[in-house]
Amino acid sequence: PPKLRKYLVSPYDPRYKVWEKFLILLVVYSAWICPLEFAFLRYLPRAPFVVDDVVNGFFAVDIMLTFFVAFVDKKSHHLVNDRKKIAVRYLSSWFVFDVCSTVPFHSISLLFNKHEHDFGFKFLNVLRLWRLRRVSSLFARQLHIYTTPNLLLEKDIRFNYAVIRCTKLISVTLFAIHCAGCINYLIADRYPDPKRTWIGAVMPNFREDGLWIRYVTAMYWSITTLTTTGYGDLHAENAREMLFGICYMLFNLWLTAYLIGNMTNLVVHSTSRTRDFRDVIQAASEFAARNQLPRQIEDQMLNHICLRYKTEGLKQQETLDMLPKAMRSSISHYLFFRVVQGAYLFKGVSARFIQQLVTEMQAEYFAPKEDIILQNDSPSDLYLLVSGAVDILAFLDEAEQVCGRAAEGELLGEIGIMCNKPQPFTFRTTKLSQILRISRSRLLGIIQENREDGEIIRSNLQLVNV
Amino acid sequence: PPKLRKYLVSPYDPRYKVWEKFLILLVVYSAWICPLEFAFLRYLPRAPFVVDDVVNGFFAVDIMLTFFVAFVDKKSHHLVNDRKKIAVRYLSSWFVFDVCSTVPFHSISLLFNKHEHDFGFKFLNVLRLWRLRRVSSLFARQLHIYTTPNLLLEKDIRFNYAVIRCTKLISVTLFAIHCAGCINYLIADRYPDPKRTWIGAVMPNFREDGLWIRYVTAMYWSITTLTTTGYGDLHAENAREMLFGICYMLFNLWLTAYLIGNMTNLVVHSTSRTRDFRDVIQAASEFAARNQLPRQIEDQMLNHICLRYKTEGLKQQETLDMLPKAMRSSISHYLFFRVVQGAYLFKGVSARFIQQLVTEMQAEYFAPKEDIILQNDSPSDLYLLVSGAVDILAFLDEAEQVCGRAAEGELLGEIGIMCNKPQPFTFRTTKLSQILRISRSRLLGIIQENREDGEIIRSNLQLVNV
Amino acid sequence: PPKLRKYLVSPYDPRYKVWEKFLILLVVYSAWICPLEFAFLRYLPRAPFVVDDVVNGFFAVDIMLTFFVAFVDKKSHHLVNDRKKIAVRYLSSWFVFDVCSTVPFHSISLLFNKHEHDFGFKFLNVLRLWRLRRVSSLFARQLHIYTTPNLLLEKDIRFNYAVIRCTKLISVTLFAIHCAGCINYLIADRYPDPKRTWIGAVMPNFREDGLWIRYVTAMYWSITTLTTTGYGDLHAENAREMLFGICYMLFNLWLTAYLIGNMTNLVVHSTSRTRDFRDVIQAASEFAARNQLPRQIEDQMLNHICLRYKTEGLKQQETLDMLPKAMRSSISHYLFFRVVQGAYLFKGVSARFIQQLVTEMQAEYFAPKEDIILQNDSPSDLYLLVSGAVDILAFLDEAEQVCGRAAEGELLGEIGIMCNKPQPFTFRTTKLSQILRISRSRLLGIIQENREDGEIIRSNLQLVNV
Amino acid sequence: PPKLRKYLVSPYDPRYKVWEKFLILLVVYSAWICPLEFAFLRYLPRAPFVVDDVVNGFFAVDIMLTFFVAFVDKKSHHLVNDRKKIAVRYLSSWFVFDVCSTVPFHSISLLFNKHEHDFGFKFLNVLRLWRLRRVSSLFARQLHIYTTPNLLLEKDIRFNYAVIRCTKLISVTLFAIHCAGCINYLIADRYPDPKRTWIGAVMPNFREDGLWIRYVTAMYWSITTLTTTGYGDLHAENAREMLFGICYMLFNLWLTAYLIGNMTNLVVHSTSRTRDFRDVIQAASEFAARNQLPRQIEDQMLNHICLRYKTEGLKQQETLDMLPKAMRSSISHYLFFRVVQGAYLFKGVSARFIQQLVTEMQAEYFAPKEDIILQNDSPSDLYLLVSGAVDILAFLDEAEQVCGRAAEGELLGEIGIMCNKPQPFTFRTTKLSQILRISRSRLLGIIQENREDGEIIRSNLQLVNV
Repeated sequence: PPKLRKYLVSPYDPRYKVWEKFLILLVVYSAWICPLEFAFLRYLPRAPFVVDDVVNGFFAVDIMLTFFVAFVDKKSHHLVNDRKKIAVRYLSSWFVFDVCSTVPFHSISLLFNKHEHDFGFKFLNVLRLWRLRRVSSLFARQLHIYTTPNLLLEKDIRFNYAVIRCTKLISVTLFAIHCAGCINYLIADRYPDPKRTWIGAVMPNFREDGLWIRYVTAMYWSITTLTTTGYGDLHAENAREMLFGICYMLFNLWLTAYLIGNMTNLVVHSTSRTRDFRDVIQAASEFAARNQLPRQIEDQMLNHICLRYKTEGLKQQETLDMLPKAMRSSISHYLFFRVVQGAYLFKGVSARFIQQLVTEMQAEYFAPKEDIILQNDSPSDLYLLVSGAVDILAFLDEAEQVCGRAAEGELLGEIGIMCNKPQPFTFRTTKLSQILRISRSRLLGIIQENREDGEIIRSNLQLVNV
Repeated sequence: PPKLRKYLVSPYDPRYKVWEKFLILLVVYSAWICPLEFAFLRYLPRAPFVVDDVVNGFFAVDIMLTFFVAFVDKKSHHLVNDRKKIAVRYLSSWFVFDVCSTVPFHSISLLFNKHEHDFGFKFLNVLRLWRLRRVSSLFARQLHIYTTPNLLLEKDIRFNYAVIRCTKLISVTLFAIHCAGCINYLIADRYPDPKRTWIGAVMPNFREDGLWIRYVTAMYWSITTLTTTGYGDLHAENAREMLFGICYMLFNLWLTAYLIGNMTNLVVHSTSRTRDFRDVIQAASEFAARNQLPRQIEDQMLNHICLRYKTEGLKQQETLDMLPKAMRSSISHYLFFRVVQGAYLFKGVSARFIQQLVTEMQAEYFAPKEDIILQNDSPSDLYLLVSGAVDILAFLDEAEQVCGRAAEGELLGEIGIMCNKPQPFTFRTTKLSQILRISRSRLLGIIQENREDGEIIRSNLQLVNV
Repeated sequence: PPKLRKYLVSPYDPRYKVWEKFLILLVVYSAWICPLEFAFLRYLPRAPFVVDDVVNGFFAVDIMLTFFVAFVDKKSHHLVNDRKKIAVRYLSSWFVFDVCSTVPFHSISLLFNKHEHDFGFKFLNVLRLWRLRRVSSLFARQLHIYTTPNLLLEKDIRFNYAVIRCTKLISVTLFAIHCAGCINYLIADRYPDPKRTWIGAVMPNFREDGLWIRYVTAMYWSITTLTTTGYGDLHAENAREMLFGICYMLFNLWLTAYLIGNMTNLVVHSTSRTRDFRDVIQAASEFAARNQLPRQIEDQMLNHICLRYKTEGLKQQETLDMLPKAMRSSISHYLFFRVVQGAYLFKGVSARFIQQLVTEMQAEYFAPKEDIILQNDSPSDLYLLVSGAVDILAFLDEAEQVCGRAAEGELLGEIGIMCNKPQPFTFRTTKLSQILRISRSRLLGIIQENREDGEIIRSNLQLVNV
Repeated sequence: PPKLRKYLVSPYDPRYKVWEKFLILLVVYSAWICPLEFAFLRYLPRAPFVVDDVVNGFFAVDIMLTFFVAFVDKKSHHLVNDRKKIAVRYLSSWFVFDVCSTVPFHSISLLFNKHEHDFGFKFLNVLRLWRLRRVSSLFARQLHIYTTPNLLLEKDIRFNYAVIRCTKLISVTLFAIHCAGCINYLIADRYPDPKRTWIGAVMPNFREDGLWIRYVTAMYWSITTLTTTGYGDLHAENAREMLFGICYMLFNLWLTAYLIGNMTNLVVHSTSRTRDFRDVIQAASEFAARNQLPRQIEDQMLNHICLRYKTEGLKQQETLDMLPKAMRSSISHYLFFRVVQGAYLFKGVSARFIQQLVTEMQAEYFAPKEDIILQNDSPSDLYLLVSGAVDILAFLDEAEQVCGRAAEGELLGEIGIMCNKPQPFTFRTTKLSQILRISRSRLLGIIQENREDGEIIRSNLQLVNV
């Protein structure tokens, strides 16, 4: 990470992150209190306004702080250090909005005209909802990580996608319910004839009722409408309320469709792994049934597929194919170099040779009692047993007999490969085994390019097998 | 399966499985009776409490039994046999919860204070819902099989995915309806003014009504709200009920979205096969129409595609490609070895040769009146007729004439392949035929590697065709 | 199609198909009248019962007819001709149910006890709903065609998938509404206190009202509940109705989810083509913008992609790859043989050679002003202009000049291919052109295998170009 | 674009486009006013009818204009210029409907019988809704661009798919609500007993109320029903209204399912990019965790994947593969020719050689501190640094040391490639770098085909490296 000039703060500074998270809390509070004040202002005690001023103070501090926070240029992906550029960028983007959403209009109104319930000033207070952009940008950052600079990949990328998405949807739903309830109350509160309002028809003297009961009733109407339950005990009584109801229900139609769409998306995505696995298992079972394969082969097939789903991520190979060759080489080097170097066939060969070899190798898992190589098969791959245990078998006198046992670090099938003759033995795992595989053609290609190493390998082979 | 020590029970023991299934039934009973007791306790007869104690007894037995059931280690996939480890694992995980959910709080409360309707003890009874984890883990095991040990693949893997999923969703829905109905009744029952409750507004003396009618009314309200029908004949009358209604409706919003998401998932998945088939048929029809192909070729195309969808699973090839080479070899060997050995061309060749051959072979089905080989085409594959019947045709004097008929077990196109000249005949099926196919290049590759067998094949060819 | 024995009817006989369709109409009538009679029997005039007996007569005829209709064996896909086998199959499967659903219980009840409104007999009448299996099997056949015999692929396969699916869903919905409405009315009708029923609370003397108004009210309640609108003007008044309402609403929850799932499936499927097209267009535009490609190249790219989506089905290539080689050969032969034979380079070569050639050819469309070959490019494909017009251009004196014009049937780039030197000219279409393409390596491969034809081609080339 | 005959207008003429857009506005107005007049006619002031006549006038002009607008033939994709053909096409398609929807029936009715509220003429006015086909064809054109002529690809193709789709759905929803509200009012208005109507039950003298309040009430009922909220304050009171309610609710069921299906489709599509990215990141993280890769390699992997998602569209490669070879050549030529020509190795070689080279090249981005080539790796690709900076490193004395630095325009790994020996150096980026890559086998293939250029390259190599 590049150095910052004096007095400047990095956007990745952990303390700044904490500050940001603290502000998020304040934003959530604002989002809740702001519509409430707007609708129920004349019934509210004085306390919230003091809290309001404190909250406004924190946001004012944040506005000033923003002039000292470096930012990442979108094109060059570099951290911009210059204080002047930072100021220009902020002043030309959201500075005005941020200031407007921080001015304590309510307190100002008290200073000027002492008339507490002025509707205009109430309306200006709603500007504080602008602060919500912070939360929305937080969700955006959590969901679309590839918009953040690649230099400093944040740890929380790996946050569960479904959790973030659901949190976002629940927040939006709750905020919509809260706002709609407050606005609907406001309409009833300001209607000339209190008995011809949705709340007055049920609670004739609702203006004398407690804040709590009125708030709960408003929320109850709001959620009854949003979920389209619509009991009908509370319903619009005049044209104003009907109009608001029309808008709210249209909005609900889309919100509900959006919720269901997102849920479907999450369900489809989260079950895809299980579904694919079951499809594959079913295809294998059907294949076995259709061809009347013996029970033993079917079990081997199903075991192998289960094991494969357990030991690898489904997208592992695709992910590796995405990487450039040098990166794949260094991964292979890290994973396989030592174990390949230890194999008797490669004793004494150059490090270059082994590095070229490991680049072409693939790791595989075999379940217990699975055949790795079949006797008499044409040799197509060389195997190296990394862990586990393998029996060596051969048909002698018409029966399969155990001829030996391969330990960890041993090569399987190297004679077939090097001498190009059918495999003399069957190799069968006795427990869960990890195995490295390299195809014969690639192995021979590498040997051809490194003649001296090829000679060493051939002499190693003769030394052991003769 | 490894041997177990004395007094230990295998988790795969059929008798233990039966015991587990019996407990599931008891859990379902508990899930139903527990909220009911919680809400309607003072109206319930004494009988259920006796049943309760019996049920508690069974669960107490299960707790003790768990100390004797071996388990499968998640990392090594081995069955853990050691009684001490079993005890440590259980004590450190769910033992405390299981015990709490088994203590007969109701009976204890009777012993101590004789006051039957104590709310605190009622609440402790709700702990029995902890037992539901058994059902939830059952569903998890049914759905995500790859979390079970690969050594003992259970038969019920192949249970229908949609059925399990639907059962789970229906259970959750019914349980939610049951609980919500009971809680809502409890709120009304404990409200000071019975007439200002959702049920009291309609049935003024509801506390004198029968248990059945009250239970049905509670369920009716619950399901009316869950499905968002909301007739409005029963609706919240006070703030407590409104609050509960708000929570329940928010929950319903998500439950409904989740139901729809799952249903969509199942519908999309279950229709994918038909949809793909229709897409392919349509693409073939459009191709035929666009290029004005003769009716006969179009019919052949559509027939072939239909046959292919009927005779193979869609994922068959992908599944086979997932398996290691040795497994594919042994499947091929099992399926094709005999029939290939019987072909005249391969009389007398070594078993090794045939094994290498069958590894490369693929089985295919041809509909009646379909061409397998066209006269004058360049030879690219050798075919072996496994079942069905094939006519041999040739253009003589400008007209297609039948020259012969190939029976089961005969090779098709071997002269073109071996002598590398265009196919002298057209081969056309007369009924549904199964055919093995091997590509020319692979066949020649195998012959090259086995020179002696190649000689035998060549002399076989000359013997028959000269 | 195989011959049938005397007196037997083929299931594919057009007259039998008409009979089947006529029966479907009767089934639909039965499905509507049956619940109606069940609920409103005592108010119905005598007319429907006469109609009922006629309908029953038709179904009795069909039962007898079924003994004479051949069927297709599921395993062998052959038409079973044997009258005995047909009888055994029918008797052992649905014969009993079909008979039960045809017996005119109502008329029998009149004969025996003269008491018209006997509930037991009414219930037996409901057995007629068994006939619905005909409709359900019709839908199954329409949707999953690959279950029909491949020998006689029906024309109506190509019926629109979405239309069939929607018809099925609408039918199910309407039937559910109809049944629920009738049952709910029946419950109210048989309730001892008419004023304590859902309909009696609103229409106190509903039993005196007309059939029409009662039927509409029942349907209105039914659909209000199914769509979860739940106005509440009609709602359950007693425990029986509540219980039925609970069941119906639970069913609705699943029906609605199923409807939405199917709709989503259809929407996703039907928009996939447009969506893919737009994705590709967007990717191309973004690529052009990111690399600042000149406007002219961008237009060419977008034009080509548009053309490709218009001229080919998306799945064409995949469909062709599914077909066996012989079928692809005969399609290529039909499409391209003549036009390739007419090209000057292939004058005088053997038919075998051309057949091998066309098997490897691919048809492509080029939009106007698109380059087919670029000057100085390495030759990789030979092109044959089937229709359209192409300008031949070359850079002379630093400017592109038109050197000639290729007409339909001419080869493009053959000199580069045959002499293995960079293309001497640029070829650019002047209008929409169809072109055949064969890759150089495949062409040379075929020439190598047919030396004599290769000589003819080489002399053809020299004759024209020297 | 081809020339048009005198007095003919091109459908792509910008002025004609403006005219079309103006007509769309009038259509929207008609769609709103037409049901309103139908339902509320007797309460409407005279003003709208004057506006109506003006609107009718515009549509009459458009009918005449259509005879002068050229059109694109669907088969040949050519612009049809012939005025006779234009007239025949229009007269035989929509001319009659367009005329019927333009005749001012209302004014005619006033002329003839002076009786203002004639129902028949009102009904004829509804024919004006035929104009909606213009809007529907607009949406079709926006969504399925591949139905427009490929010659003139419109700019607005790239309009956001989701925005168009949502606009369409919202329009349909609003129109459905508007129509249903109006029809339902009409039914109440014409019912003999005003108190037995849905609106009269609540507003007994509704016919005396203002137009505005009645319209809002009708809309409120309509949307309450469509969203299935169904408060029940307004509900059907007679059979006519029930019948209409049944139809409307059935329609709503499908509309809602269609909305949700489309929303799901959009959500799934719009989140697919993020979801895929997260899947890949997760797969890479899991792979690193499973194999315990060092932190440094994991960071490199994640950085590379992030960068790749940022710098390329996901479908870029697929899109390029769709294009014909000549187009890909000219794109490569435009992008890479200059920079390749400037590399020292290719100084003096022919333009043909470089053109062949660039056709095979691929552009890639590397994040800072990423390895491009690893020391001792076998050479498989040649790299050319287009922008950025690269350090050259080698292991000396068991430690990695910087040996040099490659600037923009330099080749990386050319010695390994040309001399076929393991790479002598590691190349590692120091900042974000763009690199061209060509595989060794393709490079050597091109050199072999151009022997003279091969000589020049070899001498260039010796000149610099000796």
